[in-house]
Amino acid sequence: MPRQPKPLVRSDIAYSTPERISVRGKDLPNEILGHMNLGDFAYFQLTGKTATPQQSAMFNALVITLVEHGMTPSAIAARMTYAGAPESLQAAVAAGLCGLGSVFVGSMEGACRMLYEALPADRGDDSDLATLARDTVAAYRERGAIVPGLGHPLHKPIDPRTPRLFELAAQNGMSGRYVKLMQLIGDEAARVTGKALPVNATGALGAICCEFGFPWRIVRGFGVMARAIGLVGHILEEGERPMAVELWQRVEDEASAHLREPHEEKP
Amino acid sequence: MPRQPKPLVRSDIAYSTPERISVRGKDLPNEILGHMNLGDFAYFQLTGKTATPQQSAMFNALVITLVEHGMTPSAIAARMTYAGAPESLQAAVAAGLCGLGSVFVGSMEGACRMLYEALPADRGDDSDLATLARDTVAAYRERGAIVPGLGHPLHKPIDPRTPRLFELAAQNGMSGRYVKLMQLIGDEAARVTGKALPVNATGALGAICCEFGFPWRIVRGFGVMARAIGLVGHILEEGERPMAVELWQRVEDEASAHLREPHEEKP
Amino acid sequence: MPRQPKPLVRSDIAYSTPERISVRGKDLPNEILGHMNLGDFAYFQLTGKTATPQQSAMFNALVITLVEHGMTPSAIAARMTYAGAPESLQAAVAAGLCGLGSVFVGSMEGACRMLYEALPADRGDDSDLATLARDTVAAYRERGAIVPGLGHPLHKPIDPRTPRLFELAAQNGMSGRYVKLMQLIGDEAARVTGKALPVNATGALGAICCEFGFPWRIVRGFGVMARAIGLVGHILEEGERPMAVELWQRVEDEASAHLREPHEEKP
Amino acid sequence: MPRQPKPLVRSDIAYSTPERISVRGKDLPNEILGHMNLGDFAYFQLTGKTATPQQSAMFNALVITLVEHGMTPSAIAARMTYAGAPESLQAAVAAGLCGLGSVFVGSMEGACRMLYEALPADRGDDSDLATLARDTVAAYRERGAIVPGLGHPLHKPIDPRTPRLFELAAQNGMSGRYVKLMQLIGDEAARVTGKALPVNATGALGAICCEFGFPWRIVRGFGVMARAIGLVGHILEEGERPMAVELWQRVEDEASAHLREPHEEKP
Repeated sequence: MPRQPKPLVRSDIAYSTPERISVRGKDLPNEILGHMNLGDFAYFQLTGKTATPQQSAMFNALVITLVEHGMTPSAIAARMTYAGAPESLQAAVAAGLCGLGSVFVGSMEGACRMLYEALPADRGDDSDLATLARDTVAAYRERGAIVPGLGHPLHKPIDPRTPRLFELAAQNGMSGRYVKLMQLIGDEAARVTGKALPVNATGALGAICCEFGFPWRIVRGFGVMARAIGLVGHILEEGERPMAVELWQRVEDEASAHLREPHEEKP
Repeated sequence: MPRQPKPLVRSDIAYSTPERISVRGKDLPNEILGHMNLGDFAYFQLTGKTATPQQSAMFNALVITLVEHGMTPSAIAARMTYAGAPESLQAAVAAGLCGLGSVFVGSMEGACRMLYEALPADRGDDSDLATLARDTVAAYRERGAIVPGLGHPLHKPIDPRTPRLFELAAQNGMSGRYVKLMQLIGDEAARVTGKALPVNATGALGAICCEFGFPWRIVRGFGVMARAIGLVGHILEEGERPMAVELWQRVEDEASAHLREPHEEKP
Repeated sequence: MPRQPKPLVRSDIAYSTPERISVRGKDLPNEILGHMNLGDFAYFQLTGKTATPQQSAMFNALVITLVEHGMTPSAIAARMTYAGAPESLQAAVAAGLCGLGSVFVGSMEGACRMLYEALPADRGDDSDLATLARDTVAAYRERGAIVPGLGHPLHKPIDPRTPRLFELAAQNGMSGRYVKLMQLIGDEAARVTGKALPVNATGALGAICCEFGFPWRIVRGFGVMARAIGLVGHILEEGERPMAVELWQRVEDEASAHLREPHEEKP
Repeated sequence: MPRQPKPLVRSDIAYSTPERISVRGKDLPNEILGHMNLGDFAYFQLTGKTATPQQSAMFNALVITLVEHGMTPSAIAARMTYAGAPESLQAAVAAGLCGLGSVFVGSMEGACRMLYEALPADRGDDSDLATLARDTVAAYRERGAIVPGLGHPLHKPIDPRTPRLFELAAQNGMSGRYVKLMQLIGDEAARVTGKALPVNATGALGAICCEFGFPWRIVRGFGVMARAIGLVGHILEEGERPMAVELWQRVEDEASAHLREPHEEKP
């Protein structure tokens, strides 16, 4: 409880005194260290609430899904940066995170937002989900927009993460109306386009974020925190088995070949 | 085992096929999701090894310690960035990470490196740790450098995280010669300076990183991945209870007051 | 002229051979160094064309306007980052740039885009600008959006940069239909709202970008390159007269005061 | 002159009032816009002094040299980032800047620092430069370090920028003892190693920075501000002729080929 007028600059997350370090009201050394895993602590840092066992299982799975996706543009950017500034590992991770925007993690954010717009969190449970799905797909098609969270360029016919994420949701009491609505939207999109458009991992995760009740504006943050972990793994590997300089030379040579004269070729 | 000549560009972390997403040789949906917590997966992503229960307990605690430190320069930078580009949450986290350099997380890295230099990982167990501590402190003093991992400007007389981290290390079989050496270095530094210089959290974490056998170059990465989580928490709060614009106006007014003429004061 | 099939990876900007470094077809040492100023070279790097004296005058003024705006959130973020990682000056500049998004430089981009949408570059010169202004303002009002490039919270009644930028545009033959349209939009917005809404610096710059024919997607880039210069100035000053640590301590103290117990106050 | 006790938070760079925007004591609209080019304004922003015609010529050339170096790791990182977050152009530039560390721009910083350490700015003009060169090279060799600013992997036998930069220095009265010392260091390094080690562009620029009297800690900043311009050029081209997705797919395929089973190849 504040002992003074509410200040203009105020944070409820953490404080320190000489003897104490407190995060969200818990004593870090004695009530958190050794008592929570990293995913649970992330949940606690963000919500101020201790995850139930079900929330813990689901939230850890949600974030883990987003850690590692192979040699993505994000991983390549981080490796390129590390090659130039190995003394600034933090800047290499930062560079890799900068591209987690509309094209990649945007689709999870988009699915979450779409679901909340179709079905606000405070709406009663008697909504007709099939009608909402139909209206949602129709609205996206009318404005020529792609329905987020459906289909995948590589993972066909289905994204192998989706059934597992939905299974975990069911096991942990989180397979509610948002999961159902996302699936109905996939069915409806397939019906009207004639193409198979199953829910992909970002659609599943977007729906699960709605089940948690997370605001859609923070959903991208799960991808960002997860990828920071993945990028540290890539930088560790780049330090041991570098590829950045080799890639740089290939790109440099190929991209400017048409500009160089034959008698001026690099040795 | 590679089935083809070793390529110049090669990563052993992950691969995807239409039906499969594999990380470090495990099937992500079926062998990882629901079977690991986030800290364990981070350990797996970095080392390719499944954490034992003891490693899991210790590694989760290690990373959690680094997530949140209040309204740090890093958190302020992230909030300032978010105020200007709320559509680019990833860039706000990236901005906050950019400052995790020599001054803040550098001390954990420095402690880890110091310990490895005093006692290389492949050195036999018969080393005289007290002599190593004495030589290490003497070498730092001779070149006028501060011994990393000792003392704290706020947490006096002791950093409350240190005894808890060392307790967890003992409980999990990780209180070996590096933890002992770090403590002896603290004792020796106190002896020769006449000041209390107990091991702080970064010193304890640096020693624990050595117990794990992590290369010192990657130690900063634990701080970076942890802080990414913390910063998402700060950005979420900034969205709900903004302070960046208020701080900006205060700084702007104060910093330029001496330049403005009395009759030109801002309204 | 390419001597081989058009490669998938190709850049027309620059190439190097042992004896030659060429940018946009000019020899860097002998045809550029000593023959261009930095603004002209930026123009050349972006467009591949040598600026006329008029374009040179206008483009240098355009970018200079965006270099320095005092103790902005961007400058504060850069200084906070430098305090943590003084060995990574480049990361401090990067952190400061990350926030140049929709809130700050977005308004110049928005004005440029609005003007092109009202009056596409390939439209004939007989357009009725007054009608376009009326329709544009009406469209923004109808969807509840703010017309970009008008008004200023501090610079009242007029932004002192605007008349000077328009004067330079007139002197350099760049006061064409986009500048006129921007002014008419300001007049129309004032007429329908009853409030003075003169064109501000970002509105003037957005219109001048249209006069140059720059694509609206790159307009933010002028703000970014300009601010990089400004931020180096702030970091140089931060190194000589630091404020980051003082600001950090103030924010930390104020933000968490309500959480700390009276008997636990920091010393 | 301050009219109040020196505040803890103070900047001498700029201030704004409703009618006035002032940078380094000059009125931005009326005394700067239309009166300076971008390089001169950068010099003014950093030093608070108006460049002489000679300083203007040299400083513009110095920064221009650093703008564009082809498809560098920095350019590749920026393009990768833009592919993921095209709505955050500023984050793509930031990502590209993050790698301008010890490996690339570090050599200019290193040359500048080496020259100041050999010959402090306040040292009298009677120094024996040949002896300083000999001692400097000997000191680097003794500790196994590479002398910065000499030789080039591609530009052989000489870096074509060096003679031009030294020519401009001579024409503008900036070919003083630091330029001479840098050249003597190159000669000495060649003598003791038996290899041709002519001064490269970063060595020439480092020496010219000393002639200007810039502190070595800010020298990296010239590379950072210059490269920000170059990266905007790359991002503009990436928007028009993308290469990031093609590169990503190639790297992904090659890097993980050894992990995928033959029957699981991507289509």
